[in-house]
Amino acid sequence: MIDPLPSWRPGPTRSALVAFLDAVTDIPLPDRVAMFDVDGTLWCEKPEYVQLLFFVDGLQRAIAERPELAERPEYAAVLTGDQAALAELGLARVALALAETFAGLTPAGFDERVQAFFAGAQHPTLGRPLGTAVYQPMLELIAALRQRDVDVFLVTGGGTEFVRGISLATFGVAPERVVGTMIKYAYERRDEGPTLIRTAEVDGAANEGPAKVEALQRHTGRRPIFAAGNSLGDRELLEYALAGPGPTLALLVDHDDAQREMAYESTAGTIDDDVQIVELGRAEGWTIASMRDDWTTVFPSA
Amino acid sequence: MIDPLPSWRPGPTRSALVAFLDAVTDIPLPDRVAMFDVDGTLWCEKPEYVQLLFFVDGLQRAIAERPELAERPEYAAVLTGDQAALAELGLARVALALAETFAGLTPAGFDERVQAFFAGAQHPTLGRPLGTAVYQPMLELIAALRQRDVDVFLVTGGGTEFVRGISLATFGVAPERVVGTMIKYAYERRDEGPTLIRTAEVDGAANEGPAKVEALQRHTGRRPIFAAGNSLGDRELLEYALAGPGPTLALLVDHDDAQREMAYESTAGTIDDDVQIVELGRAEGWTIASMRDDWTTVFPSA
Repeated sequence: MIDPLPSWRPGPTRSALVAFLDAVTDIPLPDRVAMFDVDGTLWCEKPEYVQLLFFVDGLQRAIAERPELAERPEYAAVLTGDQAALAELGLARVALALAETFAGLTPAGFDERVQAFFAGAQHPTLGRPLGTAVYQPMLELIAALRQRDVDVFLVTGGGTEFVRGISLATFGVAPERVVGTMIKYAYERRDEGPTLIRTAEVDGAANEGPAKVEALQRHTGRRPIFAAGNSLGDRELLEYALAGPGPTLALLVDHDDAQREMAYESTAGTIDDDVQIVELGRAEGWTIASMRDDWTTVFPSA
Repeated sequence: MIDPLPSWRPGPTRSALVAFLDAVTDIPLPDRVAMFDVDGTLWCEKPEYVQLLFFVDGLQRAIAERPELAERPEYAAVLTGDQAALAELGLARVALALAETFAGLTPAGFDERVQAFFAGAQHPTLGRPLGTAVYQPMLELIAALRQRDVDVFLVTGGGTEFVRGISLATFGVAPERVVGTMIKYAYERRDEGPTLIRTAEVDGAANEGPAKVEALQRHTGRRPIFAAGNSLGDRELLEYALAGPGPTLALLVDHDDAQREMAYESTAGTIDDDVQIVELGRAEGWTIASMRDDWTTVFPSA
């Protein structure tokens, strides 16, 4: 038989995943639902979120056309990398300001921008195309779940439409199975026909913490039996999946591999700085994937 | 070859549908997206919306436990069928009040209520189980589209979770492919474990008119090449689908069959009482399905 998880090193984590994959085929089809966080769980989130790199790229294009934009405080802080200014403004305000540079685009127009970005973007430190800074073991896990008729959804704190732009090609997940932070659209009857236009306004809250669980219910109406995450923003998603009836599994990616990726404690989405996510995960019965110990390979070969 | 549309009588409407089904197989897979309205398009919406019957059933259960509820103006108007009072209160306010009777339920608990309701409910006038007051020709159309790998979504003005309760069994559509009006949930850590609890608050606007197009983008990130509806609340959905690139089709169900169902002009969702939906549809190039002339059968046989 072909090993579905060739990049997972033998040990308790791999064994737990294999046991879950075996158990899944006895679960009724409508209950086979898996949710994956994206940033830091399926692809690198350091030194910057992938979407932030996309936003900065969009900002630079906008400034090429309208140089006066560079003076706006949020943009100036991003362009100079002024960490103190960025901290004072707050990530939410900066992200919103950056999202404004895409206002007015149609869904198809925005998607073109995403495609163009990934066609050229390199990861800042890893020396590989940005769209390939994804975790090979996690791709194998997604494929193994799908092969067992598990419906896989991506539940991201990032922009829904941004992740949709690469979800099918990169993760094999259709656009409608991406649940994230959503921009509002306006319906307009234009000369070229009826169309949707991106606004600069976020629809609801950023998709982190308990909001992730509420959003997945809103979006799918289904309770996951499997969830994977890496930060405190995924805590509720993981505990909700694990607490369901039947075989369930909550997987936490531990970024402890300074050599092949980075070593850091994920703090995104936290309101409680004292909680260490890996420590919490062990106490809660989550399965911990140590990048250093459990993965024979981190990234796909070229 | 087996006829995919046996309940559609030969004529221009059937021919247009068959031509579209033939054309669909040349369209790239990611573009194969169809959206169906539900009330009046897939099942009867007269003499009352199916969901209103469910709400009234829920109200009667609630009153059995707390008789004082019967005195609340919204509930009193529903129970006595006082049309003047209902008109004065407005459907939105009445619907919200009725939704309150389900507040506090988990998603699984709400689903149980939906299942129990359909297990016993009869259509008020047609003499058949309520869950079978669905249009056989539309079921055939959904099946024919799905057979051609078209992803079918339901885009309803009604409650998302209510339609999800029967979408798979009745229409073959998975819960995550239902986009409708959504109630807010609250994430709670309870003794029995983390869970979602229904509130009485609607998340965003009722899903009618332009909101339907915005919601389907938010939910699916995909532009439909096919849409079916029956009322002014579906106008934007139909015109958006029809205006897309490539082969597209907009289908309007005309309720003109007083003998087998009902004859009425659909006005739901309108803010402009002067627009006649069928007249508008003809002018816009929509394909009109006359229930009387185009359907050999209206309902599935027992």
